[in-house]
Amino acid sequence: MAAGILQCRRFMLKFLGLYFFTYLQYYSQTADARIRHYKWDVKYEYKSPDCYKKLVITINGRTPGPTIVAQQDDTIIVEVMNSLITENLAIHWHGIRQRETPWSDGTEGVTQCPILPGETFKYQFKVDRPGTYLYHAHYGMQRTAGLYGLIRVSVRDGDSEPFAYDYDRSIILNDWYHNSTYEQATGLSLPSTNFIWVGEPQSLLIHGKGKFNCSSTVASSPSWVCNESNPECSPFVITVIPGKTYRLRIASLTALSALSFEIEGHNMTVVEADGHYVEPFVVKNLYIYSGETYSVLIKVDQDPSRNYWMTTNVVSRRPPTAPTGLAILNYYPNHPRRSPPTPPALGPIWNDTEPRLAQSQAIKSHHSYIHTPPPTSDRVMVFLNTQNTIDGYRRWSVNNVSFNLPHTPYLVALKLNLHHVFEQTTPPTGYDFKNYDIYSKHNNSNATSSNAIYRLQFNATIDIILQNANTMNINDSETHPWHLHGHDFWVLGHGKGKFDIYKDPRQYNLVNPIMKNTVPLHPYGWTALRFKADNPGVWAFHCHIESHFYMGMGVVFEEGIERVGSLPSSIMGCGDARGLGRP
Amino acid sequence: MAAGILQCRRFMLKFLGLYFFTYLQYYSQTADARIRHYKWDVKYEYKSPDCYKKLVITINGRTPGPTIVAQQDDTIIVEVMNSLITENLAIHWHGIRQRETPWSDGTEGVTQCPILPGETFKYQFKVDRPGTYLYHAHYGMQRTAGLYGLIRVSVRDGDSEPFAYDYDRSIILNDWYHNSTYEQATGLSLPSTNFIWVGEPQSLLIHGKGKFNCSSTVASSPSWVCNESNPECSPFVITVIPGKTYRLRIASLTALSALSFEIEGHNMTVVEADGHYVEPFVVKNLYIYSGETYSVLIKVDQDPSRNYWMTTNVVSRRPPTAPTGLAILNYYPNHPRRSPPTPPALGPIWNDTEPRLAQSQAIKSHHSYIHTPPPTSDRVMVFLNTQNTIDGYRRWSVNNVSFNLPHTPYLVALKLNLHHVFEQTTPPTGYDFKNYDIYSKHNNSNATSSNAIYRLQFNATIDIILQNANTMNINDSETHPWHLHGHDFWVLGHGKGKFDIYKDPRQYNLVNPIMKNTVPLHPYGWTALRFKADNPGVWAFHCHIESHFYMGMGVVFEEGIERVGSLPSSIMGCGDARGLGRP
Repeated sequence: MAAGILQCRRFMLKFLGLYFFTYLQYYSQTADARIRHYKWDVKYEYKSPDCYKKLVITINGRTPGPTIVAQQDDTIIVEVMNSLITENLAIHWHGIRQRETPWSDGTEGVTQCPILPGETFKYQFKVDRPGTYLYHAHYGMQRTAGLYGLIRVSVRDGDSEPFAYDYDRSIILNDWYHNSTYEQATGLSLPSTNFIWVGEPQSLLIHGKGKFNCSSTVASSPSWVCNESNPECSPFVITVIPGKTYRLRIASLTALSALSFEIEGHNMTVVEADGHYVEPFVVKNLYIYSGETYSVLIKVDQDPSRNYWMTTNVVSRRPPTAPTGLAILNYYPNHPRRSPPTPPALGPIWNDTEPRLAQSQAIKSHHSYIHTPPPTSDRVMVFLNTQNTIDGYRRWSVNNVSFNLPHTPYLVALKLNLHHVFEQTTPPTGYDFKNYDIYSKHNNSNATSSNAIYRLQFNATIDIILQNANTMNINDSETHPWHLHGHDFWVLGHGKGKFDIYKDPRQYNLVNPIMKNTVPLHPYGWTALRFKADNPGVWAFHCHIESHFYMGMGVVFEEGIERVGSLPSSIMGCGDARGLGRP
Repeated sequence: MAAGILQCRRFMLKFLGLYFFTYLQYYSQTADARIRHYKWDVKYEYKSPDCYKKLVITINGRTPGPTIVAQQDDTIIVEVMNSLITENLAIHWHGIRQRETPWSDGTEGVTQCPILPGETFKYQFKVDRPGTYLYHAHYGMQRTAGLYGLIRVSVRDGDSEPFAYDYDRSIILNDWYHNSTYEQATGLSLPSTNFIWVGEPQSLLIHGKGKFNCSSTVASSPSWVCNESNPECSPFVITVIPGKTYRLRIASLTALSALSFEIEGHNMTVVEADGHYVEPFVVKNLYIYSGETYSVLIKVDQDPSRNYWMTTNVVSRRPPTAPTGLAILNYYPNHPRRSPPTPPALGPIWNDTEPRLAQSQAIKSHHSYIHTPPPTSDRVMVFLNTQNTIDGYRRWSVNNVSFNLPHTPYLVALKLNLHHVFEQTTPPTGYDFKNYDIYSKHNNSNATSSNAIYRLQFNATIDIILQNANTMNINDSETHPWHLHGHDFWVLGHGKGKFDIYKDPRQYNLVNPIMKNTVPLHPYGWTALRFKADNPGVWAFHCHIESHFYMGMGVVFEEGIERVGSLPSSIMGCGDARGLGRP
């Protein structure tokens, strides 16, 4: 009897221990804010997100990983245990500015050395603004293996938002490949004569679930590899109550695809973008690019006797692309698995840039939450986006310089004056505006690779003009979502064609520009941004398409390095940073 | 004109630079011995060793990697550049004792931290004995990705060997899997209810070449994935001149399979095993286990009008196993691609242990090269080899303890007194000899996992009795090739059934036992070894089957740690070793 009780107690203790290990989140109430403490175990597992079984990287057994739910001013601590056997790891907290904690940005090669297998790395940062943010792997092409998730930060107690809703729901969109990140990266690393492009994804996932047509494979797969009736890949369902209003937080972490998202029969009112309140506007299709987050409001006001499709489709890439991604908006009390009686939407025309540009231009700051940008800038840089062949390799470049990461993180190198670990030149801040034809195919044979960075004067106001151009294929220009770490920027404008440094700035929106951390550069277009270099640290700014950044489409900014506090030794395990900063 | 010359000079310099980078080996003549300096770039590439295209790990573009050719007393320097993108690396020099350089043994978790992507690690060691040795990855299950090769050490100038031959040729045997090391390791790491065994290999490779039946796949593969006429997988050919005698150095680095190897119509005279001269004996089939090397002599004395098959077949595993591996012994001047007119040998009966045991017992030291073992030992350990379920996971164990590697290498931990990084208990040195029935299936429910090690008195003589037993399947006992790092051991005997500590030692061969570094433990049998703990360092002793070691089938010995010289900081990049030892 006593033994039985003892055994039961042991079991309970074990169970509780396990529970705390797999998802430990405790609340330490302080005067204003709480500490939210997570313990994550990151490992490879077999999963079938789109019915096709493959190795994915999970956090505590899940992909997408757990949503971090916090309140403004909270401190987030995530202890990441790397259980990937022989592979390293780094996790970026996308949209979190990391003020006073630049070493927690999670960008391998920029702010930290990678986390080794068997090691635990502690990320600690403050979520200083409400809104919808992301996290994902930021090392090699590891993000495409499934290490990603959401961060939801609510307003302070007593604060209100400029819109009302009954319930808050989240959706992460993603595209999904069946080959491994190693296979993808190896193909991209081959000389251009043998270059293997990653190609279009096999599926689109809505909140981690998609449906691959198992009989569509060139080599048809046995049912233990691909099984469309596997419950793991049953469509994602959001159950809604008629009459209510829902806030949907919609995020994209695609490797490649620009997406449209729509909910059959329901308009969406856009109210938040990348953590900033938007002057509300209504869309039927929401265009969303990798690295962006939006909140939309929907009213549950349609025929309550049925369910509705939520669909996502690829835009800006030539078909055939991945088939429509499907989820179900389930009108309670209909059965959540009941398919809507109508065919799912196939989305807008893939190469119609106009409505995408129009949406980009429609996003303005909410009138009660305007952060007015400085009226002028201290430094203007124009970044021409091109595809090149450099030393026989296919690369992406900015002003004909293709970016390579160094093996000693910049943050450590700059703080500790290890100037030999990366090139000390300044990359170009413009291109041959006068003569370069952005509409034609160029060889750009003078392009080079470099790990040099831009050093910004602290507190300076910086303007960046992203200039799109033709790729190495005739009549082809791609969409590039550019993401800035450590900052939000004002989106001053989007335009078509070659940016005119004399005329176009006159059209800048200096009144109510939205602030964002990720913004699309449309085909053959330009996008103008402004930001204050007011966050001491070293920050990546790059195309958020995984393969594009891997192929060199990024730059790095340093600002106020002398104001960065003492670096934790945990970021210093590699290159010339090895063993530095140890107490 | 001058510009043309300049351009030509630039090209030549570039070409030479490239040449030196890809295979740099220069000779620095010293008084007695040379330094042989290699620079290796290790990366993922697509290859089709058995006609099936997959990612493999290459050294300077090759798998198997380049053969290291050296002379006794030479110093080998290999600078290994890790270009694996996000994966770490460690390379073990198998059979090299690493006297005075225990930090160059290349065993992740035991003698070093892994090499990070982008980093270069310098291995430096002396090849102090002539013979045939190996190298391969020793980190996770990375070896199965194709990182392996041969080391051939010739005798000193003026020294002779106890046999004569005209030419010296090498063959590495391997088994080959189509899934990745990550897929294999992940499957093995699942709870036993979902455990996915690696299964039998898809092919056997002879010197990196095999032939998979492309139409045999469950899901038949498109020709760009599997193509039997790809020249990459044309059979390996050794061209021989009639009348000559060849020394063939035959090595096995299989992940799983025990092999037999035969050359149609040719007897093989075994003359070397693991770098030691053997009292010559003749075989038709050579049985060879993972981690072993042999030299055999063959006389080119058959019908010269045709070629002959060299074949390798799996033994000791229940069919269906991988099909016969084929290579061609090409009698000059026949065409090297001409298939022999006869069907290839299918090898011996898979479960006939007798001839394998007989071969093990036939290997004795050459009478002119006997190193007499110490007549008695100072310490005897009996290692029961069992399969277990521990905490819900399928594992292999020694005396009911399944081995886990720590994340701080033992060598660093012991030298720098970091005693908290691994368990300080001593693992058991025996099992319940009296009551344990080795012929029946046991639950071994008291089995545990541990990273504790055996600490040996310096210069003590150690006897190890490897005792085989039944696995967790009825009527099943496997072959385990055990490999000892840092030493050769005397093979005192092999026997059937349960080792009798009173009777069996009387049968020990103390007269002319062969010394080896790898030895098989046959099904339901025992193998007795003796070695001197005379090499200061920390040394792994483990089953050389990749999945078995990964599942815990190994132990570690420490000896004379206080005599180990100053550790290089390059081995200290992980766990509690991070940043220690930096100048």
